Amino acid sequence: MLDPFDQKKQLILKEIGDDTSVTKDLSPKGSIDEPCIPIINLINAHPNMVTTSSCSGRVSVFIEGIKDREKIGSKGNQGHWIYVNHHPDIENWYKTIDYKINTQSTPTNELTRYILYKFEPLILHVKCRDLDSANELYKVAMSCGFRESGIGTNNIVAIRISIKLDIPIGYYDEEVVFNVDETYLDFVTKLAKDRFTENFRKLDQLYDAIKVMGVVEKKVVETKEERRERKIREGLAKQALKKSQE
Amino acid sequence: MLDPFDQKKQLILKEIGDDTSVTKDLSPKGSIDEPCIPIINLINAHPNMVTTSSCSGRVSVFIEGIKDREKIGSKGNQGHWIYVNHHPDIENWYKTIDYKINTQSTPTNELTRYILYKFEPLILHVKCRDLDSANELYKVAMSCGFRESGIGTNNIVAIRISIKLDIPIGYYDEEVVFNVDETYLDFVTKLAKDRFTENFRKLDQLYDAIKVMGVVEKKVVETKEERRERKIREGLAKQALKKSQE
Repeated sequence: MLDPFDQKKQLILKEIGDDTSVTKDLSPKGSIDEPCIPIINLINAHPNMVTTSSCSGRVSVFIEGIKDREKIGSKGNQGHWIYVNHHPDIENWYKTIDYKINTQSTPTNELTRYILYKFEPLILHVKCRDLDSANELYKVAMSCGFRESGIGTNNIVAIRISIKLDIPIGYYDEEVVFNVDETYLDFVTKLAKDRFTENFRKLDQLYDAIKVMGVVEKKVVETKEERRERKIREGLAKQALKKSQE
Repeated sequence: MLDPFDQKKQLILKEIGDDTSVTKDLSPKGSIDEPCIPIINLINAHPNMVTTSSCSGRVSVFIEGIKDREKIGSKGNQGHWIYVNHHPDIENWYKTIDYKINTQSTPTNELTRYILYKFEPLILHVKCRDLDSANELYKVAMSCGFRESGIGTNNIVAIRISIKLDIPIGYYDEEVVFNVDETYLDFVTKLAKDRFTENFRKLDQLYDAIKVMGVVEKKVVETKEERRERKIREGLAKQALKKSQE
């Protein structure tokens, strides 16, 4: 009989699909972000870890919900995204949107529904078999510069890095009003592209570090046959990563 | 003889000073942020916890260092702050700075040293006696909306919330050039003030939650005399918090 961790892992892998070609997940988007697939496969090939959620990084434009004077940036009441992209092809994003520009308006009302341009970096949640393996993964993530990582309940490690952008670019008043001009929108878009580059560089670094961690551990436990299978898996994972970066 | 946690705690308390009137700490700034003092005292009054670092939240304007094509936003080579304020009196911050405005310039050079206007919320690091107490504090923080909290090595809980602002407002080219105008600088300043308000609201909420946690625990272990002393401490802490918010 499987122990509780292995049972849980089997269940999760069954839900998301156990190979590189299947990308279903349980998020609203309904699929795993492509650039995450190699690292997810690498992590899930490790006997002591399984991924529970992931986002490879994204740019988005968010209109805050109707305010209740209590919460900032609430998604609650009619808060919604007018743009989301997980890939760095983010140029000219505003050209598909109806908007007005008024650089001299300064909404000061506390109920103002701000429009925020965001870059959100990679985030990964990984359930580990026990506290020792959670600690090990946590240390690997920290050493790669994912300085906002931490262990939560049930040995789930959150891997986070602090290269966000969170930029107010206007407000919503029955229409989208940008209080910056297109020159500035292009400027922040350029910065977000740079963050994407940095984000994928850090993802690579994390991939390599976790790979080494896996190899060191597995030396102790795996048979020749297991090792052969793992090598194939890792090769496929690496190919997929390469492909996703082309 | 004291156990290792108590030894460490005694050492830390000796370094930072053990009462509300002393605010020395080990940061470059050299003192504990005033709004943090009540919660630090509350935490340090708990037998199983001691604070190891804190920032109550701040607004800053940062000029990136000279780039090495490797790192983004590096503090390293000549990166520096031209403005830092831990209090919400942030209006007109740019009036003390020499700057030029050029809203139509779009630096695209990958070596551009961007200028970033930041709001960074409360962050607290708390060393706990054992994993159980770390888990308990982690859960309290999460339940108060500090969703980026996590447990690190040595049972240190990082308490973090995701209400940052990170806004590029210009670049440094032998002088400070803002590529937004004063109307926009006032606009982001207003938003940062709102984040300060939210930040202190969350700090209060966390204070209250940790206080309850302390009381529930202490019912089991403290004597009447200890309880009396704690009540006095908590009263002082609350007064200090009130005062810091006036």
